[in-house]
Amino acid sequence: MISQEMYELGSKRSVIREIFEFGKKRAAEVGAENVYDFSIGNPNVPAPESVKRAIIEILEDEDPVAIHGYTSAQGDFDVRKTIAESINKRFKTNFNADNLYMTMGAAASLCACFKAIANSGDEFVTFAPYFPEYRCFVEAMGAKLIVVPAQIENFQIDFDEFEKRINKNTKAVIVNTPNNPSGIVYTEETIVKLADILKAKSKEYGHPIYLISDEPYRELAYDVEVPYLTKYYDNTFVCYSYSKSLSLPGERIGYIVVPDEMEESRKVYAAVCGAGRALGYVCAGSLFQKVAAKCVCDTSDISIYKKNRDLLYDGLIKLGYKCVKPEGAFYLFPQSLEKDAYAFCEKAKKYNLLLVPGDDFGCPGHVRISYCVTTEQVIKALPAFEKLAKEYAK
Amino acid sequence: MISQEMYELGSKRSVIREIFEFGKKRAAEVGAENVYDFSIGNPNVPAPESVKRAIIEILEDEDPVAIHGYTSAQGDFDVRKTIAESINKRFKTNFNADNLYMTMGAAASLCACFKAIANSGDEFVTFAPYFPEYRCFVEAMGAKLIVVPAQIENFQIDFDEFEKRINKNTKAVIVNTPNNPSGIVYTEETIVKLADILKAKSKEYGHPIYLISDEPYRELAYDVEVPYLTKYYDNTFVCYSYSKSLSLPGERIGYIVVPDEMEESRKVYAAVCGAGRALGYVCAGSLFQKVAAKCVCDTSDISIYKKNRDLLYDGLIKLGYKCVKPEGAFYLFPQSLEKDAYAFCEKAKKYNLLLVPGDDFGCPGHVRISYCVTTEQVIKALPAFEKLAKEYAK
Repeated sequence: MISQEMYELGSKRSVIREIFEFGKKRAAEVGAENVYDFSIGNPNVPAPESVKRAIIEILEDEDPVAIHGYTSAQGDFDVRKTIAESINKRFKTNFNADNLYMTMGAAASLCACFKAIANSGDEFVTFAPYFPEYRCFVEAMGAKLIVVPAQIENFQIDFDEFEKRINKNTKAVIVNTPNNPSGIVYTEETIVKLADILKAKSKEYGHPIYLISDEPYRELAYDVEVPYLTKYYDNTFVCYSYSKSLSLPGERIGYIVVPDEMEESRKVYAAVCGAGRALGYVCAGSLFQKVAAKCVCDTSDISIYKKNRDLLYDGLIKLGYKCVKPEGAFYLFPQSLEKDAYAFCEKAKKYNLLLVPGDDFGCPGHVRISYCVTTEQVIKALPAFEKLAKEYAK
Repeated sequence: MISQEMYELGSKRSVIREIFEFGKKRAAEVGAENVYDFSIGNPNVPAPESVKRAIIEILEDEDPVAIHGYTSAQGDFDVRKTIAESINKRFKTNFNADNLYMTMGAAASLCACFKAIANSGDEFVTFAPYFPEYRCFVEAMGAKLIVVPAQIENFQIDFDEFEKRINKNTKAVIVNTPNNPSGIVYTEETIVKLADILKAKSKEYGHPIYLISDEPYRELAYDVEVPYLTKYYDNTFVCYSYSKSLSLPGERIGYIVVPDEMEESRKVYAAVCGAGRALGYVCAGSLFQKVAAKCVCDTSDISIYKKNRDLLYDGLIKLGYKCVKPEGAFYLFPQSLEKDAYAFCEKAKKYNLLLVPGDDFGCPGHVRISYCVTTEQVIKALPAFEKLAKEYAK
């Protein structure tokens, strides 16, 4: 009599959860320092000191009724203005406060965009490997998720496969660059080609196909620039989160950009506001809106992730693992050493290595390694990866 | 091509918003101190000092990765345990951590409950006067809102009208006591009778009819006890928020109670978790979860609201207004002095009195007066209410 769909969503034990439980059990047996848990995408680098300073300054200087009071549903005007100006400065865009809608993090950003534009029968296209919650969010908003298979040589886009999956029902395309789980950043070439196809197909079908850019990992990019997508394609939503850039995943703070260049931009923005209302968001947390604005130029110490990536990528390649070199986020996504990634992850457990099979990300035959861990863990884990590889070399 | 429904939800100018804009205009003309704005339900009493202390203590004493990290989706275990124990102590209930699900405030609590139990075709019943967002939330979750007309003598429940509106499609009944906009607290007699009907009807239709208790005003009760509803009816969800009790409306922190006594309680709890996931909630803000637990025994200085209520209620009655005496929340809901509450509110504007017509609350012929304002404003406004009354006495 309750919603069967919600019951299933809430009761299905996730693979990551099961790995977590195994990890706890093993830690009790062999000591936590001897379990190499690479399963969790939770930043291990603390928030920058400026976050703590900002919170205390706000508490000391401002009126508590204003600090903790409702902001307007789209977020505090000054906060939105500050963030818009910061984006403009960094990416030579031209946003103002009214292009931004503050949210409770990336999941809320995505859900509000999906709900704002989805009608029954609509299709949302994404590219494997992809963040599995997309399916849950898209389906909850009454639409259907269509997955383009991975181009496993480089995890850029397989455009032939993509074009086969666009049709008159295609409402939007979701991209996530830097990517969870591959760590890949789409090249400018990929973006330009994607934009060209979307322009042509929008024209062909007589309605805009939106591009939804899920950007929690924007600031976590090593050696490369991450193209700012509104500059390549007008009908782009940017869904941003401070979870990773400021190591605030539990605080749920982020925003959506609806650029003026978007077709009927103000109407779409109003629909985002309507979606936020229908989803019970009311407003993003008021203190952390102000914190985000005060720390708009800061990030956590990302150099630790880069160091981990280098050690782990170089180490695995030397051991014979096949892996596309990631340029961002805090994930590596190597091929499993046998076809069945689940079986491979089971074997890895023998060496206290906790990895996540790629199947849930729409990419079998691969495993996700989250390297948001201490560098010490990375160094200590490499011999375990070596033993695991040797088991397959027999 | 976007969602027309979301566009309409996001673009419809609300009555309260229009009053707010008028207030700004008048303030520029006659000075803010001469505009008596009784339209907004935003606490004017600051958060207790303990909130600031709690935040600073947490920042000083705890690891930033833990402070700002993801909690489990249902909320930090220790936070839930502390809150459950506090409820048990106050209301002689028997909850544990796993009966609680932490949320981003009352709106999120309601949406998660609605989504967890609603199937297409379901009806949710509520009693006028009622919080207008119920309609938006219920419809967004795919169900239908049925409104029982107000019993205007005392704003308790008109049970004859209620029974006419229950049928096999009734999934839940929503109550809000203390009530927005009437300020009325349901008596124990009302609760017992409501529970008896729900028990009988659940039996008749062979499925539970849930009771959803929306409790953002629980702590704002004057001279009376607010019955704790799970003790009267097993299939009760409690939707709580700290917005008013701790004056933290912008921080979006609250919880849902799913008691063990509920039919298939663990299954329902799982569906609430599923709903939170589908709505993009991820987890309630981690810092404010901890703050709520630390301040579990505190409230803002509620005596100010009581003082305002007494001054305003006594003053209006003396002036000849008809009003049921409110025992909680920070609202008075008197009859308008002409049948058309909109016309009455227009006349009130001449005296710089900003009131909200009762029509949106499902109760025409009444106006809502929010007295979460300074006592000075209440005192200064009474002569304006007098002039307004005199206009009708002519």
